[in-house]
Amino acid sequence: MQQITSAHDIQRVVLAARREGKRIGVVPTMGYLHDGHASLMRAARAACDIVIATIFVNPLQFAPSEDFTRYPRDIERDRQIAEEAGCNILFTPTSEEMYPEGFKTTISVGGVSAPFEGIFRPTHFNGVATVVTKLFILTQPDKAFFGQKDYQQCLVVKKLVRDLAMPVEVVMCPTQRESDGLAMSSRNMYLSAEERSRATILYAALQAAQQFIMQGNRTRLSIEAVLRDVLLSVHDITIDYAAAADSEDLSQPDEFAPQQGIVLLVAARIGSTRLIDNLLVR
Amino acid sequence: MQQITSAHDIQRVVLAARREGKRIGVVPTMGYLHDGHASLMRAARAACDIVIATIFVNPLQFAPSEDFTRYPRDIERDRQIAEEAGCNILFTPTSEEMYPEGFKTTISVGGVSAPFEGIFRPTHFNGVATVVTKLFILTQPDKAFFGQKDYQQCLVVKKLVRDLAMPVEVVMCPTQRESDGLAMSSRNMYLSAEERSRATILYAALQAAQQFIMQGNRTRLSIEAVLRDVLLSVHDITIDYAAAADSEDLSQPDEFAPQQGIVLLVAARIGSTRLIDNLLVR
Repeated sequence: MQQITSAHDIQRVVLAARREGKRIGVVPTMGYLHDGHASLMRAARAACDIVIATIFVNPLQFAPSEDFTRYPRDIERDRQIAEEAGCNILFTPTSEEMYPEGFKTTISVGGVSAPFEGIFRPTHFNGVATVVTKLFILTQPDKAFFGQKDYQQCLVVKKLVRDLAMPVEVVMCPTQRESDGLAMSSRNMYLSAEERSRATILYAALQAAQQFIMQGNRTRLSIEAVLRDVLLSVHDITIDYAAAADSEDLSQPDEFAPQQGIVLLVAARIGSTRLIDNLLVR
Repeated sequence: MQQITSAHDIQRVVLAARREGKRIGVVPTMGYLHDGHASLMRAARAACDIVIATIFVNPLQFAPSEDFTRYPRDIERDRQIAEEAGCNILFTPTSEEMYPEGFKTTISVGGVSAPFEGIFRPTHFNGVATVVTKLFILTQPDKAFFGQKDYQQCLVVKKLVRDLAMPVEVVMCPTQRESDGLAMSSRNMYLSAEERSRATILYAALQAAQQFIMQGNRTRLSIEAVLRDVLLSVHDITIDYAAAADSEDLSQPDEFAPQQGIVLLVAARIGSTRLIDNLLVR
């Protein structure tokens, strides 16, 4: 596996690869890799000739109050995981490389970026759209792999790609979970042992609401009440949102139609750690 | 010359051309072509294997009060001019093709987009940046050709390309002028015969200010006073701006340094027709 840090170098390598007709898969990450990331890399390995993982803790997608500076980093471990998962290239640009002095361009995607994370992290998806566009321009992928855990992000990236007609297929891969159901996330390392055991309530709430829907309940507020009731059964939890929405456009009808795909979305703080999770019910 | 209207088709053609190692030049236009556009196409012809001219009157770069609906169109004449200038492909997408139902993505470039046109047409450069990005994604050019007449637009596109690291060289070509100095523009056709003769005052003002600078005057307000005095020597003219600025970043120092490149920029309405022009003094 080759490690590249310069934008110019990665572009040279991928343009050459494309001229040879190679299929390029990219897995954009913020590093501190876990098996969720590795599963994306394995999916890319299976579908593409050249697999590029990118590691970049993108300052644009953090608000000043958020955890940009303390976001966990461990490049040696990341290298090992990426190599074992079959990556050919690890692209690890610096901030200066991605956003050189005077960088001023912002990309915003309306619609699906507005609710949920868009309310609690108002500049977040602009940062995501901007960095993803630049990473796609630098790595020229045929396919890009994202985890379902960031469900709304997947929708935003799909919309961005469709709107700009980027020749990239966005592949959403299943959320990887710990044995007790907690969705894998680099931020789980912020949790104390006691918080870690309470954190399983997110997935429990999603499963309870899923079951409630399977029993024939399709009234949004009643589904959301199940989510809330389960989440609030543990102490010291703050809910940002606990919602049911249309799985395609994130609209929130009073009543879901029989064939309408539903996504259950939760964001909550356990102690000072903000966690998100979701479940698709189709 | 091949005419293509579908985004999917143009992408298929250019991706195939790139695989063959062909150098692609693109000339983005809003149609109603004149010799200014043709000169861009000839420059592309000289530098590239495949020349694509795009014709798209981009609704996003017009404010509701502006001339989008009455902007002149003549596709038959355009086809002939593009073909004679050596274009291989004329890309003429519809609005629905460029901005399908639900299109929500906006690209904004800060900095150089803020002054001058950015003040008088506040959403204009967002529209330009968005359409140029999409056209570049669709046509995958090695080089893109723009006229100096839209000087600030050239700077915005160069900044966009640099910020996002697009593998495109932006080439700025000289403004083409009528024999009396009026910069060629599709909007000149709005002018009555009497307005047309007054419109030459823009270039006259630029030349007077250029001469004033050549005589050693580098105080901004005194340069701008020359521009204004000449412009206001004709009746029924409204000046949006008549300015001297740094030719790279459009900053406006009180005094220009001896080696500093200066761009003279004017925008004025003659009757109801808004015209722009500029001159580089280096």
